[in-house]
Amino acid sequence: MKLYTYWRSTAAYRVRIALHLKGIPYEQAPVHLVKDGGEQHQDSYRGLNPQGLVPTLMDGGVVITQSLAILEYLEERHPEPALLPSGAADKARVRGLAQLIACEVHPLNNLRVLQYLSNELRVSDRQKTAWYHHWLAEGLGALETRLANEKDTGDFCHGDQPGLVDLCLVPQLYNARRFEFPLEDYPTLVAIDARCRALNAFRAAAPEAQPDAVN
Amino acid sequence: MKLYTYWRSTAAYRVRIALHLKGIPYEQAPVHLVKDGGEQHQDSYRGLNPQGLVPTLMDGGVVITQSLAILEYLEERHPEPALLPSGAADKARVRGLAQLIACEVHPLNNLRVLQYLSNELRVSDRQKTAWYHHWLAEGLGALETRLANEKDTGDFCHGDQPGLVDLCLVPQLYNARRFEFPLEDYPTLVAIDARCRALNAFRAAAPEAQPDAVN
Repeated sequence: MKLYTYWRSTAAYRVRIALHLKGIPYEQAPVHLVKDGGEQHQDSYRGLNPQGLVPTLMDGGVVITQSLAILEYLEERHPEPALLPSGAADKARVRGLAQLIACEVHPLNNLRVLQYLSNELRVSDRQKTAWYHHWLAEGLGALETRLANEKDTGDFCHGDQPGLVDLCLVPQLYNARRFEFPLEDYPTLVAIDARCRALNAFRAAAPEAQPDAVN
Repeated sequence: MKLYTYWRSTAAYRVRIALHLKGIPYEQAPVHLVKDGGEQHQDSYRGLNPQGLVPTLMDGGVVITQSLAILEYLEERHPEPALLPSGAADKARVRGLAQLIACEVHPLNNLRVLQYLSNELRVSDRQKTAWYHHWLAEGLGALETRLANEKDTGDFCHGDQPGLVDLCLVPQLYNARRFEFPLEDYPTLVAIDARCRALNAFRAAAPEAQPDAVN
């Protein structure tokens, strides 16, 4: 398998964790999102992924875009260890929580949106940070409420093994710290994040451990 | 089943189409997103869905949030007619295309984001429309490229039966028309949308056909 990735992309980070958790060997093809106006916009990459977003997974002749679709694909092809619980209601809880992050927080705060705020809407750095923090607080607040109160939460977001929600949570908190978002109001999330980051698979997938990481 | 819905919510619209396609009887609980500052923010609804977003599905004691998670749940509980193809690679194509809309277009253009642009960033109506059109053009452009060029596209987004991508496409184009976004550059999407909207399930789920629709 070949993963088109960027060390700081939280969507690529999710997929890297899954590959390591499942022990799937893969090759990295780094796509630099900033250099030369962004390699993701070059024709060679757009031919593979017309959205010009990372990650993209190639598995033989199969090209898959969108991190959650990639994660479901990996789950079907390599079921163990499972990222999703069994049972339709449990699966729905896990997918709903993962989408809370992947569909409601991340899309508002990714690079292309922050670039639009600066370049097109000419907002100040202070306003851009307020935007970033606002959507993070909205999403993480709802997530904290749910994880702290729902009986299915365990050592990890669903039960006592890391799964799909944890794969989304850890990269999102990495990004939150990068943008200096205070995390003291989210003790459940912070505790789960710490448990995850103690695991080898999460360590190996971390941005700073990637070959394309820049110090 | 009970669906918390709002007639104009594109995420709720997706779920309504699925319920009608699969012939699942359901009760509607309308949540007015604008009246009185938004019923979705009231404690009674936040207790059910801490994100304060629609839709929410209740199936007996099971509460499910996030439209794509709801759709996967319906697919597992009521497999026929199928929204997803069989085969991991085909499923990945369909989920990736659905997420292109649900994770990359819709979250940037929904009500709460447009409200933030006006109320917090004080952008002009012209800038707000440009924002809306920009993210729609980004997403629909990539979608048109893929659907027009990929062999798995048929009368519908994947093959010759409506499925998960069509459920996301039709509400997004409804919203595009509402915001006067020109669609002439997207002939494949427009043709598929027309085929979908000729079907009874899509008609029954349309915003203007809902009991809470306001003329």
